[in-house]
Amino acid sequence: MLRIPFPDLYQALLKAMLALGIPQERAQRCAQLFAETTRDGVYTHGLNRFPRFSAMVENGSIDVHATPTLSAAFGAIERWDGHRGIGNLNGQDAMSRAIELARKNGIGAVALANTNHWMRGGAFGWQAADEGMFAICWSNTLANLPVWGAKTPALGNNPLVLAIPREGGHIVLDMAMSQFSYGSLSSYSKRDVPLPVPGGYDSEGNLTQDAKAIEASQRALPIGYWKGSGLALVLDAIAAMLSGGTATHQFSPDPLREAGQSQMFLVIDPSNLAAADELNHIADGIIASLAQATPIDPAKPVRYPGEQTLTLREENMRSGVPVDPEIWSRISAL
Amino acid sequence: MLRIPFPDLYQALLKAMLALGIPQERAQRCAQLFAETTRDGVYTHGLNRFPRFSAMVENGSIDVHATPTLSAAFGAIERWDGHRGIGNLNGQDAMSRAIELARKNGIGAVALANTNHWMRGGAFGWQAADEGMFAICWSNTLANLPVWGAKTPALGNNPLVLAIPREGGHIVLDMAMSQFSYGSLSSYSKRDVPLPVPGGYDSEGNLTQDAKAIEASQRALPIGYWKGSGLALVLDAIAAMLSGGTATHQFSPDPLREAGQSQMFLVIDPSNLAAADELNHIADGIIASLAQATPIDPAKPVRYPGEQTLTLREENMRSGVPVDPEIWSRISAL
Repeated sequence: MLRIPFPDLYQALLKAMLALGIPQERAQRCAQLFAETTRDGVYTHGLNRFPRFSAMVENGSIDVHATPTLSAAFGAIERWDGHRGIGNLNGQDAMSRAIELARKNGIGAVALANTNHWMRGGAFGWQAADEGMFAICWSNTLANLPVWGAKTPALGNNPLVLAIPREGGHIVLDMAMSQFSYGSLSSYSKRDVPLPVPGGYDSEGNLTQDAKAIEASQRALPIGYWKGSGLALVLDAIAAMLSGGTATHQFSPDPLREAGQSQMFLVIDPSNLAAADELNHIADGIIASLAQATPIDPAKPVRYPGEQTLTLREENMRSGVPVDPEIWSRISAL
Repeated sequence: MLRIPFPDLYQALLKAMLALGIPQERAQRCAQLFAETTRDGVYTHGLNRFPRFSAMVENGSIDVHATPTLSAAFGAIERWDGHRGIGNLNGQDAMSRAIELARKNGIGAVALANTNHWMRGGAFGWQAADEGMFAICWSNTLANLPVWGAKTPALGNNPLVLAIPREGGHIVLDMAMSQFSYGSLSSYSKRDVPLPVPGGYDSEGNLTQDAKAIEASQRALPIGYWKGSGLALVLDAIAAMLSGGTATHQFSPDPLREAGQSQMFLVIDPSNLAAADELNHIADGIIASLAQATPIDPAKPVRYPGEQTLTLREENMRSGVPVDPEIWSRISAL
């Protein structure tokens, strides 16, 4: 495994973003988000995602010059149009605006239509928590998950992020609606290793831990079977309705043309309801209570959502950020 | 199965509520909520729950005279104290207030501390949707679910409700964090029928569809394994922190003393962002798209969350509401 110092990763990504025609200030922000995603261990949506991002700029799915505009506003909620601009920049802008609305009104929301894949959803959770805010945000996606009771895709693998600010380390959950993403299934099937728990149905309709069988049937499982199926559906409906944008069933099935996502950004500013000490005390009590549970493997203490991010972040800043050698050599040669 | 006309069910519940010392107007609302819950097919949290509700009034866990009071407010978010009053009335009041806040500010939230079991969470989703509002609400509970990586309970089976208003039938998802509740496990184990999908671990740590083995190990599964575990944790933390109330780890392990829940009620009023026609059109498109998916069993079309509620509601209003004969004879004899 190749490890690259964070500043080198950022510089290479910045040059690559500029080569795609992204204006300077926006190229910097975009490179920063891609580099931080890799630094935090979300390798699928950082550097390794750049080739696909680049292809979607080149095929016109992403407009590098578009910036979001306000379409409607009332009180503490706003509707924005992302004009198919760069997804992680649109997401960051939408979250910034929702934070402003929450600061003024205690709670605020932005519904963003017509944007693009936001890359790592957790980034916007960390962004809010770093400002002392609670956040709930999600995106819809193209249809790649069967709805409960059906065997063909009708649901998006919609990512859902919940963030809680905490002095001792934010609690940030970043999860999608499938038990395993297709990227994860592919990694198990390449290594010929069974999934740790059932991840879908084979072509005969049996629950299976065989990733290859699920890749063949395309019947990956939503989390909690009928429950995650329902959750994926309502998240899609809320985002599409409130933003006035595209719903899962309206996306192109071609992942390189998956443009026009609808997203929700809900933010709560707790600072006028409670003192920071009270909030940290409650959060610390919850984290401490996890240590009272008996671990299955005494060598593996229970973790809270976001804990591993901080561990990986520190390790990768210290030892260099792991990169795929082939993608790295292509990008650093630009 | 015994079926009782809805008005008779309501009247019997009203008499029972009055016998518990609940003041008239509140007894009417409470009986209405219990009766509607049974009418809508959520049998576990309607009439059948009355004996436990009654025991908790008698042991002092529920104070029938307490009503919620405002503890803190800023803009569109408020913190209320439920004073361990009746859970479904506190929930209805909190949702009413969140709806008022949303009507004024586009979005509104109430964080409710120190309340009691809200019975059927979906009731508050339907309440919001009937007013044309989107809602997200949840409650924490006592610890009855192992956190991922542990074999003893540390998480609540926190119910989460998402509601979407729609002229052709609201979309309302009402789900808890466990794949199967202990009530549901007990129903499978009594009938000696295997669970349809794995529902937990046996005492040797193997995934199992044997409800009895899970009742013995007390290792029920959160939905989506590590994902539902993370979701249960963050829902608890957000509700406890924002309400300033009890977190899951602080509850008595005795279900008859499970008092002091923390709850969140988030509401969005879409009416100033978009026309009702636009919203219904998007929602109808999503519901219609489900019919395009190929059903596993052609005789079982795919359903959306809330669809079965309307079907059961109509059937039970027409043919009478199904009740447990023993509980019914006890209550109607009061």
